[in-house]
Amino acid sequence: MSVGIVQEQSVTFDRELRLESGRILGPITLVYETYGTLNADRSNAIMVAHAWTGNAHLAGKYSDDDPKPGWWDAIVGPGRLLDTDRYFVICSNVIGSCYGSTGPASLNPKTGKRYNLSFPVITVRDMVRAQALLLDHLGVDRLLTVLGGSMGGMQALEWATQFPERIRSAVALATTSKPSPQAIALNAIARWAIFNDPTWRKGDYRKNPKDGLALARGIGHIAFLSDESMWQKFGRRFSARDGQFDFFGQFEIERYLSYNGYNFVDRFDANAFLYLAKALDLYDVAWGCESLEEAFAPVRVPLQFFAFSSDWLYPPYQTEEMVGVLQRLGKPVEYHLIDSAYGHDAFLLEHETFTPLVREFLERVAG
Amino acid sequence: MSVGIVQEQSVTFDRELRLESGRILGPITLVYETYGTLNADRSNAIMVAHAWTGNAHLAGKYSDDDPKPGWWDAIVGPGRLLDTDRYFVICSNVIGSCYGSTGPASLNPKTGKRYNLSFPVITVRDMVRAQALLLDHLGVDRLLTVLGGSMGGMQALEWATQFPERIRSAVALATTSKPSPQAIALNAIARWAIFNDPTWRKGDYRKNPKDGLALARGIGHIAFLSDESMWQKFGRRFSARDGQFDFFGQFEIERYLSYNGYNFVDRFDANAFLYLAKALDLYDVAWGCESLEEAFAPVRVPLQFFAFSSDWLYPPYQTEEMVGVLQRLGKPVEYHLIDSAYGHDAFLLEHETFTPLVREFLERVAG
Repeated sequence: MSVGIVQEQSVTFDRELRLESGRILGPITLVYETYGTLNADRSNAIMVAHAWTGNAHLAGKYSDDDPKPGWWDAIVGPGRLLDTDRYFVICSNVIGSCYGSTGPASLNPKTGKRYNLSFPVITVRDMVRAQALLLDHLGVDRLLTVLGGSMGGMQALEWATQFPERIRSAVALATTSKPSPQAIALNAIARWAIFNDPTWRKGDYRKNPKDGLALARGIGHIAFLSDESMWQKFGRRFSARDGQFDFFGQFEIERYLSYNGYNFVDRFDANAFLYLAKALDLYDVAWGCESLEEAFAPVRVPLQFFAFSSDWLYPPYQTEEMVGVLQRLGKPVEYHLIDSAYGHDAFLLEHETFTPLVREFLERVAG
Repeated sequence: MSVGIVQEQSVTFDRELRLESGRILGPITLVYETYGTLNADRSNAIMVAHAWTGNAHLAGKYSDDDPKPGWWDAIVGPGRLLDTDRYFVICSNVIGSCYGSTGPASLNPKTGKRYNLSFPVITVRDMVRAQALLLDHLGVDRLLTVLGGSMGGMQALEWATQFPERIRSAVALATTSKPSPQAIALNAIARWAIFNDPTWRKGDYRKNPKDGLALARGIGHIAFLSDESMWQKFGRRFSARDGQFDFFGQFEIERYLSYNGYNFVDRFDANAFLYLAKALDLYDVAWGCESLEEAFAPVRVPLQFFAFSSDWLYPPYQTEEMVGVLQRLGKPVEYHLIDSAYGHDAFLLEHETFTPLVREFLERVAG
């Protein structure tokens, strides 16, 4: 069942964060939510890390008439995978985002103005460093697990390699040790779409640059779906209201991209989108190391990986490369390739394909 | 060896063309080039059909100091695949394009003004109908073969199904019976990029809308390459002149997309790009038929197909579906899956992988 009515929380740390770039950011605010109760020996905490455009609102509703629950509600609550009768579940909005955590749309405490492009380039490693401060704040020394898909999976990898002493396991879904040049190229096009929008004004806009941001999001949707799921969902159907020989006539897939693109403008800040796209592209679990072997050497707890057969953004071969290295290093690693038509989105859409396997994994870890 | 110095030619037909949409276009001009000599019994003519942004300048140079030969020079000339000592080779710029054939940038003879968006939506079938007029003009009843890749392959399919009596064979490379919704989605993003450019002015521009068109072309390059070729060509290398933590810092793949995108603006008209993108998306060899079986029923000459393993724009399964249907119908069909890392571009970049096979095929047909 659902966790019910939930509340957003927020904390501002009094210390600054030294970023991977060498720049200093702070004081930092993190917005987060928690579900369930931390037990007496503080051993039941689980962190869920969100993807690119996600936020801290993982589960539950804000009020009885809230039309939509949190973004991964299906796996959180009494009796669900992350059983809030047993676990204390934490989800925080990453730095660089726009849902209350410090990001480019935040006011720079030193100037009293929005950061915009004066915001420093951040990395996934920086996001996780900020989350470690949140754990300190919550009094959690060690997480039972950290779980996430896509950019959330990258965060799980950072916990496993940068803070191995603070987790007892990690679960990474639909992720990569480093995005491919093809994935970077798709983000490059998305960036370019925003840069091309004259209302973006080099990040100094009053209103979100809607045409550029909608287009950028449209590109994302192509990357998140798959050839197979597009055939199933849209095929070559033409919009019923348009003529096939109208210059502006649209196929259903075009309407989908446009509709979802423009919807996105109401909920996400263009600069935050750009900063997080950059963090994705720069992501490399072996950042600062000579090899994946060196990067994974510190791993000391069980890792569980899931890849999805039709995910062409972070294809299975990229997960398999990591799993291969971990196995050669003798680390406790488990890998499942899930057969799915849903592409990268599968981790959000087909949770029933992996939740039984994560449940068993957690039993063993907690066991 | 090269065909040497060549000249562009042009013909304006005195009749109008009734388009697939029901609209009338004309008088139509086609720009074309020919290489070699039509033999006495007019049996040695070969038509090469170009892809999306191609043109009639298939081979040779316009002058001794012309820096670049035609777009598929490597396969045309004495001793080459399309041996101009034996064959009379024809290539014409399609209608809807911007290299001299009638397209949206042409003057509408009825108004004296550029068509722009008053130009009718055209189809690949319409392009081939116009080419048939060119054959009449050249006194060629029947082609020895028609050969093309991508949109050129679609034209070859149209010849085989709409004008089966006018060809003795056809060779289609890296093509599809109908683009997938994923391919349509990529074109939709490209269209959107141009629509978003305020200098496009609903097609009524004086200067090509450069930022939108460059971005649109950048998307194309992602579709034409492959995950594998991008790893080989660019990997995750960062531009040497940029800092990794610069907000505007670029990966090499980004620079490639941007560089090639902006280069494209100098050579292709944005409206023509949009009209041809539309023709690609609408393409369906079974247009007006109930099935592929019905569409291929008129085929009466040998067809040769090539697909390229890493082509994800028109993936091999799409060619294989056509080949399967033709085989079940008992039509003379030959299929080669070429192992290549080059994606959709392979048909232009790795001609040595298929030219020996096309050569044999032509010998048999001419035989």
